[in-house]
Amino acid sequence: MTVDPRTLQSVLDGRWAAVRDDVRTQMGALSVHPDPDLSTADYRALTTENLHRLAESGRPHQGFDPAYGGGGDVGGVVTAFAMLGYGDLSLLVKAGVQWGLFGGAVQVLGTAQHHDRYLKQIMDGELLGCFAMTETGHGSDVQHLRTTATYDAATREFVVHTPDEGARKDYIGNAARDGRMAVVFAQLVTGGEKHGVHALLVPVRDEAGGAQPGVTIGDCGVKAGLNGVDNGRLTFDHVRVPREALLNRFADVAEDGTYTSSIANETRRFFTMLGTLVRGRISVAGGAVTATEKALALAIRYGATRRQFADPATGEEVVVLDYLVHQRKLLPALATAYALHFAQSDLVSDMHDLQNPGAEIDERRQRELETRAAGIKAVGTWHATSTIQTCREACGGAGYLAANLLPQLKADTDVFTTFEGDNTVLLQLVAKTLLSDYGRRVGKLDLAGKARFAADLVAGTVAEKTGVRALVRRGDVRDRAYQRWLLAEREEHLLANAAQRMRKALKPGADQFGIFNGAQDHLLAAARAHVDRLVFDAFAAAVDRVEDAPVRALLADVLALHALTVIEGDRAFFIEHAYLTAGRAKAVTQAVNALCGTLRPHARTLVDAFGIPEPWLACPLLAGERDATAGMTDPSPSREEPTDLASVG
Amino acid sequence: MTVDPRTLQSVLDGRWAAVRDDVRTQMGALSVHPDPDLSTADYRALTTENLHRLAESGRPHQGFDPAYGGGGDVGGVVTAFAMLGYGDLSLLVKAGVQWGLFGGAVQVLGTAQHHDRYLKQIMDGELLGCFAMTETGHGSDVQHLRTTATYDAATREFVVHTPDEGARKDYIGNAARDGRMAVVFAQLVTGGEKHGVHALLVPVRDEAGGAQPGVTIGDCGVKAGLNGVDNGRLTFDHVRVPREALLNRFADVAEDGTYTSSIANETRRFFTMLGTLVRGRISVAGGAVTATEKALALAIRYGATRRQFADPATGEEVVVLDYLVHQRKLLPALATAYALHFAQSDLVSDMHDLQNPGAEIDERRQRELETRAAGIKAVGTWHATSTIQTCREACGGAGYLAANLLPQLKADTDVFTTFEGDNTVLLQLVAKTLLSDYGRRVGKLDLAGKARFAADLVAGTVAEKTGVRALVRRGDVRDRAYQRWLLAEREEHLLANAAQRMRKALKPGADQFGIFNGAQDHLLAAARAHVDRLVFDAFAAAVDRVEDAPVRALLADVLALHALTVIEGDRAFFIEHAYLTAGRAKAVTQAVNALCGTLRPHARTLVDAFGIPEPWLACPLLAGERDATAGMTDPSPSREEPTDLASVG
Repeated sequence: MTVDPRTLQSVLDGRWAAVRDDVRTQMGALSVHPDPDLSTADYRALTTENLHRLAESGRPHQGFDPAYGGGGDVGGVVTAFAMLGYGDLSLLVKAGVQWGLFGGAVQVLGTAQHHDRYLKQIMDGELLGCFAMTETGHGSDVQHLRTTATYDAATREFVVHTPDEGARKDYIGNAARDGRMAVVFAQLVTGGEKHGVHALLVPVRDEAGGAQPGVTIGDCGVKAGLNGVDNGRLTFDHVRVPREALLNRFADVAEDGTYTSSIANETRRFFTMLGTLVRGRISVAGGAVTATEKALALAIRYGATRRQFADPATGEEVVVLDYLVHQRKLLPALATAYALHFAQSDLVSDMHDLQNPGAEIDERRQRELETRAAGIKAVGTWHATSTIQTCREACGGAGYLAANLLPQLKADTDVFTTFEGDNTVLLQLVAKTLLSDYGRRVGKLDLAGKARFAADLVAGTVAEKTGVRALVRRGDVRDRAYQRWLLAEREEHLLANAAQRMRKALKPGADQFGIFNGAQDHLLAAARAHVDRLVFDAFAAAVDRVEDAPVRALLADVLALHALTVIEGDRAFFIEHAYLTAGRAKAVTQAVNALCGTLRPHARTLVDAFGIPEPWLACPLLAGERDATAGMTDPSPSREEPTDLASVG
Repeated sequence: MTVDPRTLQSVLDGRWAAVRDDVRTQMGALSVHPDPDLSTADYRALTTENLHRLAESGRPHQGFDPAYGGGGDVGGVVTAFAMLGYGDLSLLVKAGVQWGLFGGAVQVLGTAQHHDRYLKQIMDGELLGCFAMTETGHGSDVQHLRTTATYDAATREFVVHTPDEGARKDYIGNAARDGRMAVVFAQLVTGGEKHGVHALLVPVRDEAGGAQPGVTIGDCGVKAGLNGVDNGRLTFDHVRVPREALLNRFADVAEDGTYTSSIANETRRFFTMLGTLVRGRISVAGGAVTATEKALALAIRYGATRRQFADPATGEEVVVLDYLVHQRKLLPALATAYALHFAQSDLVSDMHDLQNPGAEIDERRQRELETRAAGIKAVGTWHATSTIQTCREACGGAGYLAANLLPQLKADTDVFTTFEGDNTVLLQLVAKTLLSDYGRRVGKLDLAGKARFAADLVAGTVAEKTGVRALVRRGDVRDRAYQRWLLAEREEHLLANAAQRMRKALKPGADQFGIFNGAQDHLLAAARAHVDRLVFDAFAAAVDRVEDAPVRALLADVLALHALTVIEGDRAFFIEHAYLTAGRAKAVTQAVNALCGTLRPHARTLVDAFGIPEPWLACPLLAGERDATAGMTDPSPSREEPTDLASVG
């Protein structure tokens, strides 16, 4: 069966295929790959220029409220931004700061007064702004940041203040060079009472670009990557802003200083505000997906033409992607990139339906979306970091040259694992939600149900001790239902285990920190298992939706490789807890190897289907394709050419 | 028991403690941390300047023959170069190219005529040179590179020529800017007959810095890191050099074109020449060790002062290194860094005894050294890549800023896994040697021995199938002898397994490539297991040599954490092959967690003992130490402060 790459691409493109095609065309208008020796100042200037071109294209408007000239297509715009990951990640991040974080905060935390005054300027890129949440001393624990916004009823103003060096706003995009305003997150105080973190619009630069009185602007300087983005620091010395600066959708302060909010609980209010900002986290996950795809396209295309070590019998050199170990480096990572692509598409689609202007608020679904976004962001960005690293290594010395694009991809995406939520903290957040849901599920059981539940737990322990469980559930490791069973069992097992451990912390006098800390690795494993199962389900559903038989068959193999790679990576768990026998675990490894061989001839097709604009891939690394495979969709796999150990040394 | 950091440092400093202390002092004279926004041209100029300062210090002379003004201290100079990994890795690599690769090749492949003429200039840094081995088309398989050196008896010259673009010399350090000569590796042809790869000294630039006639010099441009090194490309268009340009220690061409060599077999000759160059590989491993130590010092010191998430009961924030998951990220990596430090020290020491000018040639030990160097280089540089990545992530946004040094460490060391031998290819080389030795071992057995051997194999399979083996050998996973047993059994098991598979390839008509390829992952696993056991033994021997009881006890815990981390990482293997029961495997994980807790209070001491000059660690990341822990050897672990899940979200 021949796979039509265009059909495969349309499956990957999904709901926003038209947007993706538009962006592919538009990207042609941007300057391709800035000179890697550009100074930081020049790279920042170039990125700002590209940002304005993006604004002129009308693309960013698509994400805003149609009542203010927006396009009302949140999913489309997040998809479009992620596509910039095929090009220049500095531009992606700068656009994300301007329209996703800054503009998004004004849109979802502000009210009509803010929208009327600022939205158009923001969409047009006339008012560039910052999202000033993180502080030097508080990155993950933003609920406890220390900047204050104290209401002065006498002047009807808020006084924004940085009490100490740890409270300065840090790593803030758009701050060092361009931002004229900032959405500043601060502890709101009125009438001597604290009400937790709120967001205010604070001017930081005047029209001429100078710092506003009382505002000190610092520069984070050169970073590992993303040097087109001007990250900086903001310190406020009793800066006064009018009462209307408060983004007051969820809470307000009256002229006399009276505080009101539709959400009474301070913590819940904070997380509701944060939740509306989930778009930023989803956008980072999207950028991680596209950047990973680009790295894989480069490494796989190079591996499919690069030859090394001759068969002494024929003298013919072997294509490196024909070596099992090279396949092992790249093809499982490619399979997981596919899985994440589909999981990410679902996430964007669900966010669109929930958050598009005019959509009704559904708290339960919103909460589920946030948890899923946190999990996929963590898993997706770690996959990006490890895969791009592997791709660099798979290209040897060539992969180390800036001209071959992989160094920039690596350096730019490196921060993805720790910004917009540190991955470890995000997985803890996922674990926390899972535990609450689990507690509610168990709590809702009637007496008989609870007894059954307890009996199941005991039976599980017995099954594990006797190794019976692995014998009960048999099946071919290549069978999708069997893979799904393993992933779901692991999720449930780890969750039950974590819940049991955490229950001890509820006892009076318990060493809470000790118990939490001792269970921390279990919590993270449970969260990870949950995300793995979610991603598997998203990919499986996508495969089932495909009508074209050859494409469906190919994707089914990719799904199997992804699932078995996850299972193989944690096969110690599956054996330790008697879900797999030792023999079955070995069969998993054999199946991964076999699937690498099955997919090898389709490797080129699989990366071509991402539809990465060719000018954004053009580099000396792929020059070998001209000679070796001109005009071929899939270079000859040369699987028959033998070599032997002697030629390796 | 209190550990004296100075005693610990003297244990780490080992045989060349005096050299290390000298270098610590000398490094004060170099400019600390070049501006990260320096242009490539300026960074190259600065690195060349620092190279000349190194030459003036007399340090590089220490590695050369005393007969020519050298110091005859090969081990000392390799140790000294590795120390530069605490400072600027571009300088380390540029020095390695000049004195290790270029100078080293002239020293060990040349004869008196070359030494008389060039060694002093090379030591003094007056003659800068290149080591031109790698070609665009041949990086790993250097035996098959394609540059030719054809002897013309009429003029008594060699004609050095690049036949096609794939044969140009690529990624060559010192080529783009500074090198005046190059040791060029080329296929030697005389009288129409090929004799394999040989090295010749070829002038590439004139005194004014222009390219010599017939030589085309290219520039590799910006790289991911190491941008102080001027990597370039060399293409030769029928460049004529005198007959004496051949580095003729192992082979020579007479005036009439007659070829002679002390080593008849072409492949063996090639590998003998390569073997003398093992110093380069050992130096890279040394740089990986020091760079990893620097990254760990930064991340652990930051983690010991950074606080995040308050205990809601007390309001006190928890030091991040007190979280189990944070310990898990850093402390096992630190333990392995210790293991590699000692394994590397042994390697340097053995190389010194074998290769120091005047030492007798011992082919067997030389071969063992090469294999060990290949293995430790592979394992050590992969550990550097993953650990430095983890350290960056453990420092969050701060770790992404160039000012905090981790980005440069990451970018500079990234190529270590693929230069001076691609790690995957190096491990295959290790596997090949292990297989040959194994074959010889089995071959030497008498009939009774062979029968016993076969019976052992069968018994092993039976034991595995029945799970009996794990029951036979019991013990505490914290027991060193037990850990050693596991590591040695794994090595032997994987080797026997690989040998069995490869034996099939010897049958007539066998699909050699298919068999080799199918076993490739087993071969790599066997090599890896071998290196792990070697590294463990080196560390264990070092611990046993320590006389100071508190230091010995501390190091014993570090060794246990290292060993159990390796075992935990491959525990699926140990269960699958019945070396561990599932229950024992879980005990391994628990022991790793417990050891993290045990070592936490010593974390600062353990990184201080590397003796990294403080100016090379000074950065904003560690500014928090001033407030939090001024004057303390070990910051308060605050282990008693509880937190709970609620504060995480």
